[in-house]
Amino acid sequence: MRESTFALGETVEKLLAEKKFHTLRDILITMRPADIAILFEEIQPALFRLLPKELAAETFVEMDSDVQEQLIHGFSDTELKEVVDELYADDAVDIIEEMPANVVKRILLQADPEMRKTINELLNYPEDSAGSVMTTEYVTLRPQMTVGDAIKRIRRTGMDKETIYTCYVTDGARVLIGVVSLKSLILAEEDELIQDVMIPEPISARTSDDQESVATLFSRYGMGALPVVDQENRIVGIVTVDDAIDIMEEEATEDIEKMAAIAPSDKPYMKMSVFEIWKNRIPWLLILMASATFTGMIITSFEHALAAQVALTAFIPMLMGSGGNSGSQASVTVIRALSLGELGFRDILRVMWKETRVSVFCGLVLAAANFLKIVLVDMLWMQRDGVTVSVALVVSAALALTVLCAKIVGSAMPLLAKRVGFDPAVMASPFITTIVDAISLVIYFQIATMALSL
Amino acid sequence: MRESTFALGETVEKLLAEKKFHTLRDILITMRPADIAILFEEIQPALFRLLPKELAAETFVEMDSDVQEQLIHGFSDTELKEVVDELYADDAVDIIEEMPANVVKRILLQADPEMRKTINELLNYPEDSAGSVMTTEYVTLRPQMTVGDAIKRIRRTGMDKETIYTCYVTDGARVLIGVVSLKSLILAEEDELIQDVMIPEPISARTSDDQESVATLFSRYGMGALPVVDQENRIVGIVTVDDAIDIMEEEATEDIEKMAAIAPSDKPYMKMSVFEIWKNRIPWLLILMASATFTGMIITSFEHALAAQVALTAFIPMLMGSGGNSGSQASVTVIRALSLGELGFRDILRVMWKETRVSVFCGLVLAAANFLKIVLVDMLWMQRDGVTVSVALVVSAALALTVLCAKIVGSAMPLLAKRVGFDPAVMASPFITTIVDAISLVIYFQIATMALSL
Repeated sequence: MRESTFALGETVEKLLAEKKFHTLRDILITMRPADIAILFEEIQPALFRLLPKELAAETFVEMDSDVQEQLIHGFSDTELKEVVDELYADDAVDIIEEMPANVVKRILLQADPEMRKTINELLNYPEDSAGSVMTTEYVTLRPQMTVGDAIKRIRRTGMDKETIYTCYVTDGARVLIGVVSLKSLILAEEDELIQDVMIPEPISARTSDDQESVATLFSRYGMGALPVVDQENRIVGIVTVDDAIDIMEEEATEDIEKMAAIAPSDKPYMKMSVFEIWKNRIPWLLILMASATFTGMIITSFEHALAAQVALTAFIPMLMGSGGNSGSQASVTVIRALSLGELGFRDILRVMWKETRVSVFCGLVLAAANFLKIVLVDMLWMQRDGVTVSVALVVSAALALTVLCAKIVGSAMPLLAKRVGFDPAVMASPFITTIVDAISLVIYFQIATMALSL
Repeated sequence: MRESTFALGETVEKLLAEKKFHTLRDILITMRPADIAILFEEIQPALFRLLPKELAAETFVEMDSDVQEQLIHGFSDTELKEVVDELYADDAVDIIEEMPANVVKRILLQADPEMRKTINELLNYPEDSAGSVMTTEYVTLRPQMTVGDAIKRIRRTGMDKETIYTCYVTDGARVLIGVVSLKSLILAEEDELIQDVMIPEPISARTSDDQESVATLFSRYGMGALPVVDQENRIVGIVTVDDAIDIMEEEATEDIEKMAAIAPSDKPYMKMSVFEIWKNRIPWLLILMASATFTGMIITSFEHALAAQVALTAFIPMLMGSGGNSGSQASVTVIRALSLGELGFRDILRVMWKETRVSVFCGLVLAAANFLKIVLVDMLWMQRDGVTVSVALVVSAALALTVLCAKIVGSAMPLLAKRVGFDPAVMASPFITTIVDAISLVIYFQIATMALSL
């Protein structure tokens, strides 16, 4: 898809150079806004002026914020007003949130008064709340209307609405009392009343709800749009399914970044500056380096034993690695299940019991494989100094115990984090690994000093 | 949401015990299929027989496959037929794919001949292809129809279609020539022709396309449904947005599991047996343990140097940990960008150059922090044996170099994997960590032996 857009880019540049603007316009208006957006990032923003108003606004929404900013700088006030007039309020807010203050001021100046009021209201909702992602362009109906009247109303007002497929039934005080799909309106008789075809008590979100819980409702109920209500249950906006998809991707990316010890960002990788990437990565690297100091201190306190049995040192990376991998398997599984709403804190005992059994089987297999490997490779084949059957037994026992501890800690930590209000995703691999590293070394050295009497 | 369903469970069980079936039915029919499904997992499947046919089928689809199987075993043939008749073909296929052969046979026997044919066709598409996730219930229109006729057709046939909001315009040979939204039909004049209001050359997927690329199209274009065509461009099915959302969640979970060295599964965690979880985790644990053996061999080959300078051992975990974390930050970022279609192999040089600059800044900050820590804590405060300014310099230099290598390897590996057709997600943390562990030790010992002349 991207490839073919690129190939087109050359054609467009050629037409531009030859000043064949009419041919160019004919090509552009057959394309989709998302594709034109990609094209624009590659070639001259001057192209933008050739587009009809509505298509121009739709394309503008699909662009990255730096291209938008660049374009706005080039716009006359009239051009800016034309684009702003065509935007949906939620898209305008998304754009404004990424712009520097002077550009925001210009945009608000060009918006008509009602639009400006809506934008300001939306900007006041907390970031990542349902209120901040909703749109205010939806269809409302009254319960006493007939289906025929409702369809007439939709035909009259539907053009500017973000969706007409779900309509919201409100009473005189704007309180949400039901939803009705366009499908049921089309399939109903013209003289039926809305109150008889609507679904009462629809699922809704509060303006202050987290956007993640909004996305969960979509994936659970497969809706086309979700109404957002205020504290008095009055409808103030809707979230449409395409916005919900964006939220889901954003939340999944955020979880993945946190699991890899990166501060989350909402910019695509290639759009971030080296400094921004550095800023998101260095804090966790420093924290984890500091915490690895404890692991070093544990090794130091057993320096005496290690000096007496240098062969033991060679197994440290394998032990720490297997422990870390076992722990992060458990923690990542639990974190994902928490994100998808499959697990809660109340399941902690069931989860820990399950992980205990899994880790016993994993630990036994790993210990057996490790014992065989040490005896066959290190002792018989390579005949390494100081590697004895006792050493093999010590390492294998430490391995089995480490896997057991790693899986229990790895599965319990995210659930505990959730309980006390921390973000479970932050508990993932690197954090768990540090804890498990320390545990595995203590187990190893304790067993070694006891069994080998060092 | 789940909590309140649980509380309801008790009420329902009480009503059941008191045989107040009518009250029970009145409660059930006000609930949503997804909520009834959860309720059913908790209480008696006997409840199912109380539901009206259509609601029964919708609820059945929302259930986990083990509950479905249990219910089917309790069904008479007539009861089974009633449920199967109400299912959409894609839902029937999803159910069948999870059932043992004898249950599949019973289901196919009860399906009417046309449904059976459709199910068999869908079952023949490769797993996770667009063909295997599509549904065959959609609205087709002809280009010469008027808008009025089209709406009449939708009213007549729309009841059984999975969506009526996007309709597909085909020629006599079923070739897809356009799409038209119900919105544009409602807003158009009754006597306009479909060919004048439709959007020609719609975006479509091939039956053999991977479901991940289908999901990408949804997130890019924000559609309600995507047509699926065969090699002759004839429409054979559609994928609706709620199915696309399921695919996205499934693919994100799969990526996350692979990043944590777990074989992907499509069952929820609590539904998996201890043996299934073990089976998904043990292969990678064994592979990674085996590969950690190389790290051990590197340490062994520097045993002499370590015996002379035991203080060096204490810094191994910090070095390997920081290297691993730096590498997985880079690899996870690149893997996610690949999944979202933001990056391709062609970007490899730009990515590596970016990571080089990021890692220089990260490496310098970490090395400086590490140098200060060793001098202040290990030397001046704890006065540890053998820790000198030279050792501090060696460890810090090794750290900076390790971070550089880790980030370059971490970012390049997923792109190379993608290029040669491997799954980039498998390249994530544990795999990269093993490579980086080896690299960091070689760097460390080389610098140490040279600088400290061991």
